[in-house]
Amino acid sequence: MAGQKRAADLGIRIGSLAPGPRNRITDVGGVRVGHRSVVGPTHRTGVTAVLPSRDHVFAAKLPAAAWVLNGYGKTLGLVQVAELGNLESPILLTNTLNVGLVHDALVEHALRECAASGIPLRSFNPVVAECNDAGLNDISQRVIGQSEVFAAIADAGEDFEEGGVGAGTGMTCHQLKGGIGSASRVMELEGGPYTLGVLVLSNHGLLRDLRIRGLEVGREIAARLVAREEADRGSIIAVIATDLPVSDRQLGRICRRASVGMARAGSYIGQGSGEIVIAFSTANAERSAQGGDFRQVRVLAEERLDLPFRAAAEATEEAILNSLIAADRVALADGRVRECLREQLDEGMLERIRATGSGS
Amino acid sequence: MAGQKRAADLGIRIGSLAPGPRNRITDVGGVRVGHRSVVGPTHRTGVTAVLPSRDHVFAAKLPAAAWVLNGYGKTLGLVQVAELGNLESPILLTNTLNVGLVHDALVEHALRECAASGIPLRSFNPVVAECNDAGLNDISQRVIGQSEVFAAIADAGEDFEEGGVGAGTGMTCHQLKGGIGSASRVMELEGGPYTLGVLVLSNHGLLRDLRIRGLEVGREIAARLVAREEADRGSIIAVIATDLPVSDRQLGRICRRASVGMARAGSYIGQGSGEIVIAFSTANAERSAQGGDFRQVRVLAEERLDLPFRAAAEATEEAILNSLIAADRVALADGRVRECLREQLDEGMLERIRATGSGS
Amino acid sequence: MAGQKRAADLGIRIGSLAPGPRNRITDVGGVRVGHRSVVGPTHRTGVTAVLPSRDHVFAAKLPAAAWVLNGYGKTLGLVQVAELGNLESPILLTNTLNVGLVHDALVEHALRECAASGIPLRSFNPVVAECNDAGLNDISQRVIGQSEVFAAIADAGEDFEEGGVGAGTGMTCHQLKGGIGSASRVMELEGGPYTLGVLVLSNHGLLRDLRIRGLEVGREIAARLVAREEADRGSIIAVIATDLPVSDRQLGRICRRASVGMARAGSYIGQGSGEIVIAFSTANAERSAQGGDFRQVRVLAEERLDLPFRAAAEATEEAILNSLIAADRVALADGRVRECLREQLDEGMLERIRATGSGS
Amino acid sequence: MAGQKRAADLGIRIGSLAPGPRNRITDVGGVRVGHRSVVGPTHRTGVTAVLPSRDHVFAAKLPAAAWVLNGYGKTLGLVQVAELGNLESPILLTNTLNVGLVHDALVEHALRECAASGIPLRSFNPVVAECNDAGLNDISQRVIGQSEVFAAIADAGEDFEEGGVGAGTGMTCHQLKGGIGSASRVMELEGGPYTLGVLVLSNHGLLRDLRIRGLEVGREIAARLVAREEADRGSIIAVIATDLPVSDRQLGRICRRASVGMARAGSYIGQGSGEIVIAFSTANAERSAQGGDFRQVRVLAEERLDLPFRAAAEATEEAILNSLIAADRVALADGRVRECLREQLDEGMLERIRATGSGS
Repeated sequence: MAGQKRAADLGIRIGSLAPGPRNRITDVGGVRVGHRSVVGPTHRTGVTAVLPSRDHVFAAKLPAAAWVLNGYGKTLGLVQVAELGNLESPILLTNTLNVGLVHDALVEHALRECAASGIPLRSFNPVVAECNDAGLNDISQRVIGQSEVFAAIADAGEDFEEGGVGAGTGMTCHQLKGGIGSASRVMELEGGPYTLGVLVLSNHGLLRDLRIRGLEVGREIAARLVAREEADRGSIIAVIATDLPVSDRQLGRICRRASVGMARAGSYIGQGSGEIVIAFSTANAERSAQGGDFRQVRVLAEERLDLPFRAAAEATEEAILNSLIAADRVALADGRVRECLREQLDEGMLERIRATGSGS
Repeated sequence: MAGQKRAADLGIRIGSLAPGPRNRITDVGGVRVGHRSVVGPTHRTGVTAVLPSRDHVFAAKLPAAAWVLNGYGKTLGLVQVAELGNLESPILLTNTLNVGLVHDALVEHALRECAASGIPLRSFNPVVAECNDAGLNDISQRVIGQSEVFAAIADAGEDFEEGGVGAGTGMTCHQLKGGIGSASRVMELEGGPYTLGVLVLSNHGLLRDLRIRGLEVGREIAARLVAREEADRGSIIAVIATDLPVSDRQLGRICRRASVGMARAGSYIGQGSGEIVIAFSTANAERSAQGGDFRQVRVLAEERLDLPFRAAAEATEEAILNSLIAADRVALADGRVRECLREQLDEGMLERIRATGSGS
Repeated sequence: MAGQKRAADLGIRIGSLAPGPRNRITDVGGVRVGHRSVVGPTHRTGVTAVLPSRDHVFAAKLPAAAWVLNGYGKTLGLVQVAELGNLESPILLTNTLNVGLVHDALVEHALRECAASGIPLRSFNPVVAECNDAGLNDISQRVIGQSEVFAAIADAGEDFEEGGVGAGTGMTCHQLKGGIGSASRVMELEGGPYTLGVLVLSNHGLLRDLRIRGLEVGREIAARLVAREEADRGSIIAVIATDLPVSDRQLGRICRRASVGMARAGSYIGQGSGEIVIAFSTANAERSAQGGDFRQVRVLAEERLDLPFRAAAEATEEAILNSLIAADRVALADGRVRECLREQLDEGMLERIRATGSGS
Repeated sequence: MAGQKRAADLGIRIGSLAPGPRNRITDVGGVRVGHRSVVGPTHRTGVTAVLPSRDHVFAAKLPAAAWVLNGYGKTLGLVQVAELGNLESPILLTNTLNVGLVHDALVEHALRECAASGIPLRSFNPVVAECNDAGLNDISQRVIGQSEVFAAIADAGEDFEEGGVGAGTGMTCHQLKGGIGSASRVMELEGGPYTLGVLVLSNHGLLRDLRIRGLEVGREIAARLVAREEADRGSIIAVIATDLPVSDRQLGRICRRASVGMARAGSYIGQGSGEIVIAFSTANAERSAQGGDFRQVRVLAEERLDLPFRAAAEATEEAILNSLIAADRVALADGRVRECLREQLDEGMLERIRATGSGS
């Protein structure tokens, strides 16, 4: 990952807020990300785990919300997140037909963790999101099972790869190689700074619609690549983490601002796309051992939300861009190819991108 | 099932509309229900399959809607049902921690069916609902796998057992043995009659809150049984089928009327309960082979909805009652017992129930 | 009001929780209710004001939520309540076509209050709910204007009339005279007792569906009254107040339990009905003068919600019953009549109602 | 209006689909728009009426949906639109505190129309949306009454002004003069062409965030104007009309794509903003005289939705731009000024805007 290029490495800045030290979702304290990629003769897929805190999240549930911009998708676990406003599971990302097995693996993982901690587990709400990698993967095989999920969780750390890795292994974004991308923003508020980070699994969009800092570079690349235009059947999942003390309702409001970043990067929200955003805060964890009839929580004043809103929009746009820039070209034996954005951005385009908005 | 007692067999009538010939969800043409119960030394659970039509539902999707009355539940597949307003999968019911494996089994089943029909399947939205049978079942074992799901689907027919069978095997309703129940109502409208049927998986409620035709029989039984009162951690799932041509929005409105039947039977909608309703119509199937930019559909005039609304409320109330009356007493080796309602209803209570509302 | 009869006066108890001292929504500290009835040759309507706190609610906004069980209604203000989770206005109830004028009167009232307090008011979200009294009122006249609204607000107190008064003046419930009803329940929790109160404006249902404590008394009365059955075009609005510290999301969950009371009293949720619930908590007021980036709030532990859930269901059922029992018979010059429930309940029926559920 | 400049007049093209002949919402057959502006010493406000069809819309209700991207707003009528999926009223736009009076004026208008047509009107659901023009208008005066509403309706035609007119008279967008803007797109489908048109009332955003075709021109202008940055307290309302036969659920999906245009033009969806989209189709009108238990309707095949989705995104982006370009500079006697975008776009900027995306 040290060697991976990202938008900032190419001199591309998105928005006005400063990124965190890693410019990744793991700038939010306690958040870790791990991958397991599975590549074989007929499949090219994987799984990515977002661990929301150092704590056992079942025992210290976090305020959470989800938002469905377009629901042609199979994300699991959102009913309970909406009702209770919390998250009690890691968030796993994988391919569309594999969500059932990943769900079951999360159950097994939670049973073991709870057994080890002496916590009885009768009910558990795994959150599993997906995009469809059938363009590069024989999705019918469902090769992501318990060992792959456990490996992704075990792999979780603060540094992690982006692009065609983990759940991103087989994903296609704007008809180029896509996958995992991340970015973060720092927010100055009382007792801060606070951080908001985004991780996306990008698998949506047409090449001609791709934009970088507003420039329609996708049209230029499309003219060169003569890519066959396909229906936009992809999806994008965005996971937002923050250490800002916000309520579940406020997290729901934050989710909606991810759509700003998606639109700016080129999405038209295709009808066949699952565009889903899940957000959690690491503040105000709800510990089962707490007891008592009431809990004290600290929440952001509503009129301060413009700051995390902007952070969510900017970090989502940059995360999508990073998912494309970090990805490598894929060429399969059967002739299927996904070009990568990094190789398509010539120096002239990069100069124009860097110059835009500077007013010169 | 021939020998099973149901509310009507005890002379208990619910509501004013006439039931269909079987007084079950399978009175709706094409709908079939199958079970697989799994009982062993430590587990007592199962799976129930509702097949929505004789057609391959993936190839002939049905208008559908879902409604979450209380979302402390893990039902899978609702995001896409809400977005597209259709159902492309059988509806499977099972225990809480087993939904992932049942989801995966549905994927495998669809892959095989599609392969046999020469239909490419890249994406698929299984609908799996659940209640928590941990009171009688070692839920951590997740014993419902592919073979159990396939067996339940193979078992599907127009006649089916109720009570502690299939997904109902380990369920507890109003602290008595609950599980699967069903009922139907006939509706006279142009070109009719039409039918609306309900199937419930009942696992909710406190004994003292149980009502039959409004009579608080639960309080009487509770006084006798000295049952230890527990928190209401159960759930109830209701599946509604109809051959009435209604739109997905109208199905969503119909779903809400299931809550009337639930409340009348005694539910207070416990905070720890997943109370979820899923409805589909067998009219206006959306066939993938249709082609063309437009489809013609026939929908009920909005002001005629009071009839299916009443049918949904009555059939849900009676289905819950049937789930209790059909269930047999369960006594486990370790001393756990679930009494059954049928044995608790003495002739005096039955007479009062039959007499209520008659105004005499 | 001292002389008005209510369910408890007839020996009818609903549910198991104890009512507050007034058994009205005003048992919640600071909540006041006022009416203005307007009766003339062609109209029979009015307005009812629920003042949520002694504070100026615009300057000390309260956590709030609303829930639409059936949305064939014209309630104003719910978009912002959902987004911000708060209430900044009194809640006014009136007839369907009058909501615009009442909205404007609330704006005027807020402007004057803010001017008096030196608070600038640029934006304001009045909450106005309605039922349709066109059965007894020439609704096209919209006779509720600024002076009527101001009079209702000025009238607000802890004691208030029920039945055909204020917004209830022209309402019809289960084809009998309906209108305003209220009830409350006390909840024992840490630092308590706490209170939850409900006020309904009842205007829904068919006579044959009316139930009291589960007994189908409506069918008996219908047999006697030979009432012409009409489509259920009515509505019911329920306002829930509590001093329990609960979040806006939790208030949304509480709203849903009002449906239990509605169903038990006889509603089938008619398609032409606006069935809407609005809830607020007087705890955790959000004061504009607070400043600071964060707020401390105290919220109920989620697993304690079963208590306010039961309170909401019971108080709603009793409030509906009170709206019917308190109402007097209305006979208009043109022959239109609304019988009143109180006169239809003979001693035999009352005895059966009182005896039900006692198990004897 | 003949003389008004719009984006296309400056050589600025948005997106890839062709606009209709007027490039306005009135390219959808039957749709008309009218304004009434009210300007006086202390106020600067108005009202805009969108008439959805030549028919009396109460007697021929249209499929409709609404979507709330951010609900810090006071739009009236959305509860019933969501429940019934239809529109029975013109859509009126005005200032925030005036929605009650405009609602009442719509009631009066409908009563008169219904009386003239011999249609009984007992219930009516006016749709009134708003933005807050308090920056230029003494909003407390509520000067939009019945005569202004009737004048706007009487003014309705296929050609109409944009910019600071009607409801747009006092609006501010990206800290420049904003208001009314419109655009349309043509869609080729079976039996077509079909048209989708958008009308916006723009009142949102910070100057530094304004983008035209992705270029951050707002930053350049901000550097020049030294505008004091304010919190984004504005709002944007988008009304979408189409003659494409789509269901209410599909209209809801179309609404969401307006967010793409908003984000591309520069919105970060400020927390204090009411961002609301309302869409209707002129196909499949529901006539009250129809009778019968069922209706035949024609709906677009789901997989064809990408075309209206793109049309909605493009037309919304261009409509926002038109609202800015058509608006004239406003300078009030007290020194308040709103510069206009047209005067800020120098030829160099325009050339860069026109050149962007051309790949040269």
